[in-house]
Amino acid sequence: MTDPIYDHDHLQEFALSIFKNIGCPVDQAVLATEVLLKADLRGIDSHGIARLSGYVRLWDKKRVNSRPDIRIVHESPSTAVVDGDAGLGLVVAPKAMEIAIEKARQAGTGWVSVKNSNHFGIAGYHAMMALPHDMIGLAMTNASPLVAPTFSIERLLGTNPIAVAIPADKQPAFVADFATTTAANGKLEILQRKNLETPVGWVQTKNGNSSIDSNEVKNGGALLPLGSDREHGSHKGFCLGAWVDIFSAVLSGANYGPWVPPFVSFLDPPPNPVGEGIGHFLGAMRIDAFRSATEFKSHMDNWILRFRQAKTVEGQDEVIIPGDPEREMEKLRSKEGIPINPKVVADLKELASRFNLKF
Amino acid sequence: MTDPIYDHDHLQEFALSIFKNIGCPVDQAVLATEVLLKADLRGIDSHGIARLSGYVRLWDKKRVNSRPDIRIVHESPSTAVVDGDAGLGLVVAPKAMEIAIEKARQAGTGWVSVKNSNHFGIAGYHAMMALPHDMIGLAMTNASPLVAPTFSIERLLGTNPIAVAIPADKQPAFVADFATTTAANGKLEILQRKNLETPVGWVQTKNGNSSIDSNEVKNGGALLPLGSDREHGSHKGFCLGAWVDIFSAVLSGANYGPWVPPFVSFLDPPPNPVGEGIGHFLGAMRIDAFRSATEFKSHMDNWILRFRQAKTVEGQDEVIIPGDPEREMEKLRSKEGIPINPKVVADLKELASRFNLKF
Repeated sequence: MTDPIYDHDHLQEFALSIFKNIGCPVDQAVLATEVLLKADLRGIDSHGIARLSGYVRLWDKKRVNSRPDIRIVHESPSTAVVDGDAGLGLVVAPKAMEIAIEKARQAGTGWVSVKNSNHFGIAGYHAMMALPHDMIGLAMTNASPLVAPTFSIERLLGTNPIAVAIPADKQPAFVADFATTTAANGKLEILQRKNLETPVGWVQTKNGNSSIDSNEVKNGGALLPLGSDREHGSHKGFCLGAWVDIFSAVLSGANYGPWVPPFVSFLDPPPNPVGEGIGHFLGAMRIDAFRSATEFKSHMDNWILRFRQAKTVEGQDEVIIPGDPEREMEKLRSKEGIPINPKVVADLKELASRFNLKF
Repeated sequence: MTDPIYDHDHLQEFALSIFKNIGCPVDQAVLATEVLLKADLRGIDSHGIARLSGYVRLWDKKRVNSRPDIRIVHESPSTAVVDGDAGLGLVVAPKAMEIAIEKARQAGTGWVSVKNSNHFGIAGYHAMMALPHDMIGLAMTNASPLVAPTFSIERLLGTNPIAVAIPADKQPAFVADFATTTAANGKLEILQRKNLETPVGWVQTKNGNSSIDSNEVKNGGALLPLGSDREHGSHKGFCLGAWVDIFSAVLSGANYGPWVPPFVSFLDPPPNPVGEGIGHFLGAMRIDAFRSATEFKSHMDNWILRFRQAKTVEGQDEVIIPGDPEREMEKLRSKEGIPINPKVVADLKELASRFNLKF
């Protein structure tokens, strides 16, 4: 059974209407739609239009402010802290990244830590904003706690992704965008839908035992940091997730660790918050603050070509450069449309009927 | 059979004499000694005095310049590129980190990419330089290619470590310092000495097959990126190693990927270099460029305590905060001395006799 295919423009029009209907100013509705749909185009279905009704439910609960006053509350020549005013992360993060880019234009680099925000879609979108300016972009965010640090049975970190986007010349940009866990939660959801088990090393039970049950996290278990177990470096994955958490939230004044509010409206935020909303960290580095951008990009071409042409293990055609699969998916889906899971379609139809729209 | 124990001061005096004997100016010899010995104190034996004779052999081959003119070749308010003039990384990296700290004092953050350097000891030393200034420190370096990217049978990256040091108040600082591979090369060397096998997922054969032979890398095989295999996220470990390589070398004009010169004198650097020497990337972020350092450090205490007090899996007393084991080791070894492997002792005695010194 294949998923029904929807045209990008159709989904775009629908998401835009929804954002307008919950009160977003037009420019912000357009921006939120673009960030959201970029996930679907790039094949990261868990972060795209499938989340639209979730954002609306958070707005229903007044946990998302559709008309935020996004502002700098502290700054230096190369840094800023931004208060997202409980806005959609889809809007707050690109605004913060614009500030980082402007700082980089002046000071060589720009680093913005954001508090009082919400889920920001795919990290890669924000990092890639730097590319047309001949800058390197970085984006990180913390997220609701689903991950147990090495030796812990408690879930204390989110899947806390990191994205790094680096421009090249003739070659497409290097774009890494990954959760700091062995597997992203979206991959788990795919296995759940298909009633399949996970590989060993993705999840543990609520007592910290190894498990291959793709529903384990729902049963009180946890996702595992990149590395899976101590012997395979899970303490390094824990370091990465912690790094993201601290830069995104301790630096900005957002909630961190187990205090990060859940992304789903049916779970209340933890009591006694240690900060405001969730946090992001965004960075832009102007290439020519280091060396000529022309020289740099020509060496990036050389780097990418050398890795792409590496001798491969049997059965694999080439080494995949970070960003390759998503770029190819974007090309394909822009032309041929975006497959949407039937459960998501039903959810969007319900949303449509609530706002008297068609889907 | 336990290793003989040497007093820190004795090792320090010896290393200092050696660095002076190869022509280092006194201040640089003192600095190189401090960085080197910090590795032994913190229990990272592979990066300490065990490497001293290797540095001398590189100097013999004129691949290490003991009187470098370390200088800024390009800069902006928050960035610089430093030419290490083929100096010891043990000297070049802390000088570059000082520049990053000074930039951060002025511009909020400072980011220095370094070319034309050599092995810089433990990344953690350089990152931790930021701590007394109420700054966050970052340090990365590329290294001789021993790691095969996902699907590659060629070794194209080094173990490319990342260190992040973050100050707290009453709690000791958060100090992560890790190779972006499943296991560092030093761990492999320990198993080799003991004739033990590796766990599955640390190395592959020269054809890309799974292996548990701790000598596999010597036989043309490769270390694996953090995550071990595609199913467990090795493409993320590859992203991390690539990130370090590009920030350290493509940004500065050092050699990258398979062109990074080997750390051992008996292997010649690859022909047709794409840059100069090896590269590092160092960063400093002034906390109060984001929020009050007092507030930040008090929240870091809270973060650290919450994670330390997490409920643990059976058999484990507590969640280990990054930096805990090394700090405890430093306390112990400062007091009780540093065990040195007999092969290293023999090597140091030979070095002593060459320079007419005692060990």
